[in-house]
Amino acid sequence: MTDSDLEPQAASAPIQVLPSGFRFAGVYCGIKPSRKLDLSLVVCDQEVQAAGVYTQNQIVAPPVLLCRDRTPSSTIRAVVTNSGNANACTGEMGKEDAQEMTEQVASRVGCDPSQVLVMSTGVIGQRLPMDRVRQGIDAAYEKLDSRLEAFRLAADAICTTDQSQKVAFISFAFGDRVYRLAAMAKGAGMIAPNLATMLALVLTDAPLTRDQVATALTEAAKQSFNRISVDGHTSTNDTMLLLASGRGTPLEGPALFCFQSVLNSLSIDLAKLIVADGEGATHVMAIRVEGAASDDDAEVIARTVGASPLVKTAITGGDPNWGRIVSAAGYAQATIVPEKTCLKVCGETIYDCGTPLSFDAANLSRQMKRSPEVSIELRVGDGPGEATFWASDLTTDYVRFNSEYTT
Amino acid sequence: MTDSDLEPQAASAPIQVLPSGFRFAGVYCGIKPSRKLDLSLVVCDQEVQAAGVYTQNQIVAPPVLLCRDRTPSSTIRAVVTNSGNANACTGEMGKEDAQEMTEQVASRVGCDPSQVLVMSTGVIGQRLPMDRVRQGIDAAYEKLDSRLEAFRLAADAICTTDQSQKVAFISFAFGDRVYRLAAMAKGAGMIAPNLATMLALVLTDAPLTRDQVATALTEAAKQSFNRISVDGHTSTNDTMLLLASGRGTPLEGPALFCFQSVLNSLSIDLAKLIVADGEGATHVMAIRVEGAASDDDAEVIARTVGASPLVKTAITGGDPNWGRIVSAAGYAQATIVPEKTCLKVCGETIYDCGTPLSFDAANLSRQMKRSPEVSIELRVGDGPGEATFWASDLTTDYVRFNSEYTT
Repeated sequence: MTDSDLEPQAASAPIQVLPSGFRFAGVYCGIKPSRKLDLSLVVCDQEVQAAGVYTQNQIVAPPVLLCRDRTPSSTIRAVVTNSGNANACTGEMGKEDAQEMTEQVASRVGCDPSQVLVMSTGVIGQRLPMDRVRQGIDAAYEKLDSRLEAFRLAADAICTTDQSQKVAFISFAFGDRVYRLAAMAKGAGMIAPNLATMLALVLTDAPLTRDQVATALTEAAKQSFNRISVDGHTSTNDTMLLLASGRGTPLEGPALFCFQSVLNSLSIDLAKLIVADGEGATHVMAIRVEGAASDDDAEVIARTVGASPLVKTAITGGDPNWGRIVSAAGYAQATIVPEKTCLKVCGETIYDCGTPLSFDAANLSRQMKRSPEVSIELRVGDGPGEATFWASDLTTDYVRFNSEYTT
Repeated sequence: MTDSDLEPQAASAPIQVLPSGFRFAGVYCGIKPSRKLDLSLVVCDQEVQAAGVYTQNQIVAPPVLLCRDRTPSSTIRAVVTNSGNANACTGEMGKEDAQEMTEQVASRVGCDPSQVLVMSTGVIGQRLPMDRVRQGIDAAYEKLDSRLEAFRLAADAICTTDQSQKVAFISFAFGDRVYRLAAMAKGAGMIAPNLATMLALVLTDAPLTRDQVATALTEAAKQSFNRISVDGHTSTNDTMLLLASGRGTPLEGPALFCFQSVLNSLSIDLAKLIVADGEGATHVMAIRVEGAASDDDAEVIARTVGASPLVKTAITGGDPNWGRIVSAAGYAQATIVPEKTCLKVCGETIYDCGTPLSFDAANLSRQMKRSPEVSIELRVGDGPGEATFWASDLTTDYVRFNSEYTT
C-alpha cells in the first residue's frame, strides 16, 4: 500500500465502488448461537478523520460511551463491531470489555487503543464472551482485504435479525476527481430480551477536515436515520460513524456541497432499507409534510403520523383512512391550520382545505396495497417548513414476533 | 319533583346509587346500522353547575367547540349524546347540526339552547342524519326516568365498539349527609374510517360552585383519563363533563377534599375500564414511576413506557423483558438516573440500581400471563416525582381489527 493508493482516481478509471484506504473482514467468532458472522473489522491504511452520532437514550452501552469520548478524531485507524451481544447494561465489566476490544485491535494494527472505535449490537444484560471476541479479532485481522467481497462479509457480520445485508455505494466526480462513499448498516430487529439497534458505518475517500466530517455526518443523520421509525423505540447502542481517508486539500465550496448531497442521499437510501426491513413490515410510508411553521415542526408532524398505530395499521390494510392521518397530525406537538390542511395518498387528493373529497376508495386501496412505498403528502398550512419521514407499517407479524416468549 | 328531592339523604337512607336531580334516557334513533342504542339524554331537574375538559387535538369536532364555549356554567339543564357518527370534519354544516341538537333538546326541556351540552362519537366526515336525531331526541325526552335502569340505557347509548357498558358509582358521607356520584363513559374503538373517542359524563348531587366543579374536574381528569393509553391516538371528540346538582352551602375544607378524592377514584375506575376494553387488549399495564424530578417527569416516563410497542408486546406475551422497559424509560423526554434505576414486575425486583438480577423468568412469565393487570414499578432516581399510568397491551387482534378494510 503506497500513498498513491489514497489518491482519488481519475474519472476515467475502471469502476471501483469502494473508497480507497480501507480494508475489511467479517468472521464468526462464536457469539451467535446461529453460527452466523458476528465480528466485523474495518482497518484504515492510515489515520483518518472520523466522527460519530449516537443514541439519545439516557441508558448508554459501554461501546457508545467509548466512541463518544474518542470522536471527532483525526487519527482513527480501525472500527471493530460485534453482533449477537450489545454489551449493554453490563456495568463496569462491560466498559472494560469494550476497552479491551479496542486494545486487542490496536495491538494488531500497531496503534494506540484510543485510535480504535467499537460498536456492539445484540442481546443486552449479558457479558461478552471475551475469549471468543479476542480470537475473532485476530482471525479478522488475518483476513483483511480491500475488495468488495470482504466489505460484504464485514457488512454481514454487523447484522442481527436483519433479513438482508444493508449496504449502499455512491460516488461523485468533481473536476477530474472521483470520490467514493460506501456504507453498511444494520436495522431494527430484536430477540428477547434485547433491543433494536441501528448501526451505520460510512466510509469515504474524499479529503475532509475533522470538523467537516463531524458537520457533514450530523446533517446527514438528521435527514436520514433521524427521520425513520419502525416502532419508535430508541436503543441503548445506536451509532453512526463517518470515516474519511482522503488526503490533500480538503473539499470546499461546491465540491463540499456536492459531498454533503451524496452523503445525504446515501444515508437516506440506507435508512429506508432499515425501514423496509422493519420487523413484519409490508410497506414503507413516505410521509411528506409541507406548509408547517418550520422544518422542525414539519418533522414533528410527520413523525407523529408515522408513529400512530392507527395510521400504521391502515397502511397495512391498504385503507385510505384520511381521518386517522389528519387527526394524528392534529395531535402532534406542532401547530397545524385545520382549514388549510390537505392530504394526498399515493398522489390522490382525498382531503382538501379541511374538507373530505369524494374519491374511488376501492381503487386507491388497491394502489396502496400493491405499493411497497405508500406516499402520504400532508399540507398543514402556508408556512415554509417541510420534512420527509419514513416509517414501517404495523402487522400481526410484528406483534407475533415481539410477543413470543419461549421460557 | 320537589326541592327536597335535591337534598342529599341522611346516611341511614336506603341504598341509592344515583345522585338526585337527574333523569335519563337511551334510545335507538337510526344512526347505527347495528340498530343498537345511539341517542342518550340526561336532563337536570334544575340548573346545575357544569364543567368540561376536551380533546387537545387541533382538529376539533363541532360538538366539542360548542361545549367549550358553554362551560363552565351554572345553568346547564341537559346533555345530549349521539353515537355512531362523530359529527367531525363536517365543516359549517356540522356546526349547525350540533347547534340544532341543543335547540331541539332546549325546546322540550324549556330552556335556552346555551343551557344544553352535546357530545358525538362514531364515524367522521359524514353529516348527521338530523331527521332521525330530532325524532330520537323527542323519543328520549318522553322516556326520561330517574331510575338506575334508565341510567344504564343512557350509558349504553353513548357506546360505539365498546365490548361492554362503562359505568361507575361512588358515594361518600360527610357529617350526616351522603353525597353520590355516578358516571358513564365510552372508550376506544374505531371502525373505518373513524376514530377512537373517549366520552365521560360524571354526575353528582354534592353542592359545589361553578369554579369548584371546574377545578375538581381538571384535577380528576389529570389523574385518570389523561393517564391512560390504548394506542396514543388522541381523537377529535374526546370530552369529559362533570355536572353538580347539589343546592345549599357549597362543600369546603375536608368535605371538598373528600369529594375530590372520591371523584378521582371514580374517574380512575372508569379510565381503567376503557383501557381494559381497548381493542384486542388482553392485559392492562399499571405503570408506576417514582423517584423522578417531578410528577410531570414521572408521568412522561410512565407514558413513554406505556406507549412502547416493544413493551406492549412483551406484556402480551408474558415476557419479563426488563431491557425493553428500562430502555423505554431511557428515551423518555425526562431525566432518569441510570445507576439508580430499579424495576419490579408483578412485585418482583428484576433490575436493581442499573444491574440485572437473576430471577425465575418462567415463573414470573406465568404470573404475568395470568394477571389481567400487570404491575410495572420503576424507580428512576431519588426525586420526589411520582405518577401512575395505565395502558393496554398490543395484540395481533388490535392489528387485525384496525387493518381490516372491506372496500
